[in-house]
Amino acid sequence: MALIVQKFGGTSVGSIERIEQVADKVKKFREQGTDLVVVLSAMSGETNRLIDLAKQITDKPEPRELDVIVSTGEQVTIGLLTMALMKRGVPAVSYTGNQVRILTDSAHNKARILQIDDQKIRADLKAGRVVVVAGFQGVDEHGNITTLGRGGSDTTGVALAAALKADECQIYTDVDGVYTTDPRVVPQAQRLEKITFEEMLEMASLGSKVLQIRSVEFAGKYNVPLRVLHSFKEGPGTLITIDEEESMEQPIISGIAFNRDEAKLTIRGVPDTPGVAFKILGPISAANIEVDMIVQNVSHDNTTDFTFTVHRNEYEKALSVLENTAREIGAREVVGDTKIAKVSIVGVGMRSHAGVASRMFEALAKESINIQMISTSEIKVSVVIEEKYLELAVRALHTAFELDAPARQGE
Amino acid sequence: MALIVQKFGGTSVGSIERIEQVADKVKKFREQGTDLVVVLSAMSGETNRLIDLAKQITDKPEPRELDVIVSTGEQVTIGLLTMALMKRGVPAVSYTGNQVRILTDSAHNKARILQIDDQKIRADLKAGRVVVVAGFQGVDEHGNITTLGRGGSDTTGVALAAALKADECQIYTDVDGVYTTDPRVVPQAQRLEKITFEEMLEMASLGSKVLQIRSVEFAGKYNVPLRVLHSFKEGPGTLITIDEEESMEQPIISGIAFNRDEAKLTIRGVPDTPGVAFKILGPISAANIEVDMIVQNVSHDNTTDFTFTVHRNEYEKALSVLENTAREIGAREVVGDTKIAKVSIVGVGMRSHAGVASRMFEALAKESINIQMISTSEIKVSVVIEEKYLELAVRALHTAFELDAPARQGE
Repeated sequence: MALIVQKFGGTSVGSIERIEQVADKVKKFREQGTDLVVVLSAMSGETNRLIDLAKQITDKPEPRELDVIVSTGEQVTIGLLTMALMKRGVPAVSYTGNQVRILTDSAHNKARILQIDDQKIRADLKAGRVVVVAGFQGVDEHGNITTLGRGGSDTTGVALAAALKADECQIYTDVDGVYTTDPRVVPQAQRLEKITFEEMLEMASLGSKVLQIRSVEFAGKYNVPLRVLHSFKEGPGTLITIDEEESMEQPIISGIAFNRDEAKLTIRGVPDTPGVAFKILGPISAANIEVDMIVQNVSHDNTTDFTFTVHRNEYEKALSVLENTAREIGAREVVGDTKIAKVSIVGVGMRSHAGVASRMFEALAKESINIQMISTSEIKVSVVIEEKYLELAVRALHTAFELDAPARQGE
Repeated sequence: MALIVQKFGGTSVGSIERIEQVADKVKKFREQGTDLVVVLSAMSGETNRLIDLAKQITDKPEPRELDVIVSTGEQVTIGLLTMALMKRGVPAVSYTGNQVRILTDSAHNKARILQIDDQKIRADLKAGRVVVVAGFQGVDEHGNITTLGRGGSDTTGVALAAALKADECQIYTDVDGVYTTDPRVVPQAQRLEKITFEEMLEMASLGSKVLQIRSVEFAGKYNVPLRVLHSFKEGPGTLITIDEEESMEQPIISGIAFNRDEAKLTIRGVPDTPGVAFKILGPISAANIEVDMIVQNVSHDNTTDFTFTVHRNEYEKALSVLENTAREIGAREVVGDTKIAKVSIVGVGMRSHAGVASRMFEALAKESINIQMISTSEIKVSVVIEEKYLELAVRALHTAFELDAPARQGE
């Protein structure tokens, strides 16, 4: 019998009415003869309400106690859904992270799953029960309640699917799949039938916030087929899986990702000596600032220019660190720009196709969009451009890579 | 070092502000060098909110799942109080019923505590931490979350005090102690310094709803000194303990209890044969109706009258059962009355004092209050009277037994 793990997020269980709808959906799957494990988030708003209670007491809530408090959100929804299932004549049982037992490390508020005991769940499935599990939470070796951090319910779903060797892990959300790009920017954007884990990681980290990155990594590592679906609309969603066959029909580019969260910093006229990159980025990293793109060009007259991007929120902090560094190493000047956007084309197909980058640059040139930085990986080419050209660039690339065409056959 | 278990109810932790006040109080005790275990209820209203969520799904919530849901209320308050203590520099740690481990039977929604593992708590106390425990909840041998039923947090407090051999279990409430009678009826009512478990049981079951009866039974059984105090007012409260010395000064009567929750049913002209009481009460009990007072008088002409009281809510149901019985056993008639009240005098002192009952009857006679039923136990005399005389009767008895006098010395 097929075993599916289904994960429903906070909006999907945001009211009693919605919980009843989820129960209807689960019942339908059950009647098709599928074994089911259902992972739930807290009702939308509940986790924030609980955090707010804690924040009223202290700005820096004790991490262990915060986990004790916020983990109650999922505990309520699993009880409610289980009742709704039993009302429908579907045998069901709920488990907290501790009851399953989902063993994590002791890093409260951002714990990592170490091991899942599948005994209870297997026995319940065998007895014909739907097993409803609280997402986002676990227990450490000392019996302390832990949480996996925001969005951790996706990770719970994938980890359970891996432990139970489920046939599929279905993540129900408020979108009906992964799109070639944001449909609000490109109305012709299309739902992808299929995407690889690698592509999904690039899409997710570039701003297509459908799935939590960690859960995709996890799914890739344990090869759990992951499907993104809409909670309340019918449809096949998008399957995220390994790249089984590099068939001829495979598109070169799966999607266009973008974000406007970043800012760019450049240090000019840096004496080009060994170790200079470390001298520049060491203090940035010591200040706990995460760096995304890094570009260093060939040098002129024994000096070089060094550019990198950081999250826009950390621009001021990074600027001040960099100005100190500039004085220390005798660089000429520091300049920055917060009005930038990053656009990326993503696709495993580009591995075997030459000229993808040049096709990208050509499309941008046609629209007279100047490229400020370029960075490439095996399955991605990213460029930084002036923010005001973002929508224009995305649309141009979506057309250039033939993503506008009528429904693609992904499978 | 003295060890005290302190229990705070829902009103005492009903808001962040109140939780902060409780933290102040706990800190003060801690600074006096007392080891402390604090037991908490859910924030007032929270348990009802959670039950209401479940009731929106089904009229008959699955008991196991209801426990999963409602147990979250206490889990939130223990986290919040622990944070508030740590903010004040008081080392503290929270435990759910499962974490402690408070082992119960599997009777969901009304579980009974079987055993408490004191290891973790003792280790924490030794390390100087205040231990904050979720009241009202436990875990059965299979790891299912259980709750003890309404008011169960008192029982958790007493059970922990017993397991830890605490010096005292303090129950913080919204009254500053146990009174000789309800001060709303008798303004001269006085707080008792001390009362025995037996007296408290009689007072509680008769309507002085300060403590949950089960917790008093439990405290008596394990001889845990219990103290009722006001959460936010200073004062010694009332100590509930065993009857150590029957000293001369001990008052004959500790208090006057009363209630108007009952209704009276009489079956007249019952053929007086062996087994008739069972024939009458058997069907009542089979209908799950609880009976309080039972009076049967000597017979006339081989028939007898049989009277008993039930909760007023069950009067109609009891009446219809009794009418059936009357037809079957050939009784003359069934009559009932819902406009009654029960007044009781309670005191271990009456054991060694003759004439307590007659003094009670005399006081009522002086006010021309007719007595409809009488029932006595070792430490209690109860009478049923017409409801409209209730206040008058309570005041007359309070005066007759010299409870109005200036502050008594109970210790």
